[in-house]
Amino acid sequence: MKPLILITNDDGVDARGIRTLIDIARSFGDVVVMAPMHNASGTSLSFTGQRPLRVNTVSEEPGCTIYACDGKPVDCVKIAQDYFCPRPPKLMLSGINHGSNASINILYSGTMGAVLEASSSGMQAIGFSLLDHRPDADFTPAEPYIRGIIDEVLHNGLPDQVSLNVNIPVPDDGQIKGVRVCRQSKAFWADSYERRIDPNGRPYYWLTGRFECDDNGPETDQWALENGYVSVVPTTPDHTDFRMIEPMEKRMECIHF
Amino acid sequence: MKPLILITNDDGVDARGIRTLIDIARSFGDVVVMAPMHNASGTSLSFTGQRPLRVNTVSEEPGCTIYACDGKPVDCVKIAQDYFCPRPPKLMLSGINHGSNASINILYSGTMGAVLEASSSGMQAIGFSLLDHRPDADFTPAEPYIRGIIDEVLHNGLPDQVSLNVNIPVPDDGQIKGVRVCRQSKAFWADSYERRIDPNGRPYYWLTGRFECDDNGPETDQWALENGYVSVVPTTPDHTDFRMIEPMEKRMECIHF
Repeated sequence: MKPLILITNDDGVDARGIRTLIDIARSFGDVVVMAPMHNASGTSLSFTGQRPLRVNTVSEEPGCTIYACDGKPVDCVKIAQDYFCPRPPKLMLSGINHGSNASINILYSGTMGAVLEASSSGMQAIGFSLLDHRPDADFTPAEPYIRGIIDEVLHNGLPDQVSLNVNIPVPDDGQIKGVRVCRQSKAFWADSYERRIDPNGRPYYWLTGRFECDDNGPETDQWALENGYVSVVPTTPDHTDFRMIEPMEKRMECIHF
Repeated sequence: MKPLILITNDDGVDARGIRTLIDIARSFGDVVVMAPMHNASGTSLSFTGQRPLRVNTVSEEPGCTIYACDGKPVDCVKIAQDYFCPRPPKLMLSGINHGSNASINILYSGTMGAVLEASSSGMQAIGFSLLDHRPDADFTPAEPYIRGIIDEVLHNGLPDQVSLNVNIPVPDDGQIKGVRVCRQSKAFWADSYERRIDPNGRPYYWLTGRFECDDNGPETDQWALENGYVSVVPTTPDHTDFRMIEPMEKRMECIHF
């Protein structure tokens, strides 16, 4: 039996990125797509527990069923796995995201939220993102890399709780130089808010942000992408800072509660 | 000048947990509260970029201003830091959450989303959660531990990018045994959806979940909490699985793109 591949994203079921990923995945197995009805960028690992979910069937053909859900990417993974997959998926793919999910962006990303959800609940999962946020981004140069990585993971698997965060650059010269396995670069969004006054005289605040990263040594995803390489970050849902366990133990012992 | 402490949560500005935390924090310094107007549990690191934010002043007295924002906990941290703090906060506190944010729950939690946001943008940050999700939970037994940890961190600081995820048990005998520094336990939510039919004949799906954890050795937060200890997990925004960098490098070298 062909492997079953579950696909979601955060840009919504109609995005060009997920359509490209569906086309690629169909050459590897049967595909179930469960994607948000609407754009759900920046929703991280949000899930919907306070209201019920709706699911629409978008299209159905042999080997590929596409559903849209009115929840977030994490909801898509949960409900697809529980209700809409005819058998357990061998692989879960998320993306192709329109825009970077490298560095600190992994934390905010709905695309990578879905990957962390899948991976922490025992699935093999990969997130793909292209460094072009435009709706009409050209995913063609990324395709061989996405195919190669899917093929490798389908053959060799991933250890429990390990997923991949794959980001694909758009170099000025159009030439992707290869693939680098990296660590997540330390960065932050220097956010500021533009204050405006509405017609009723009340203020409202628009977010504007600037990505700030000075942690760009050659072992980082940020370096790889700036230098024309696909970045592959092996990703864990574990937030523990293991280096800090011993020092914090000593510090806690000194507190008199 | 007194240290400035910024406070948020995900249960909303009116929750008993944040009111307790505000009372505690006021004994350490000046307080600015920016909390969601409504419950924002399970919103992880969601942020609001597609619409503007509104901010209401809830109350203003010397040393303590409380604002409510119609965004998510991450939005609260961003907009407070940029617009509503009279000086840079020395410490950011989130909670006290009504319910556990230990183990895998850190990934979904808006309370801990705010902590990761603050910490990755350079602030010292601590999240506090009580293992009682009821709106009228009794936070009294937790107070000495929260005071002790705030005091310690105000004096000794935290390294860059390191925050604390503090969970407080509610033992049957009411006796908290002490504090343990732990790693995040591996667990998952075994989710299933209850399918119902609406009055128009269309299906909708309610999430029901069961927390599953068999990673409960004495070094884990889950063990600490089940055995009556406060769990303190040193937390990083870095999702890299460093053990996998070398093996994945070898695997990627074998792919012919």
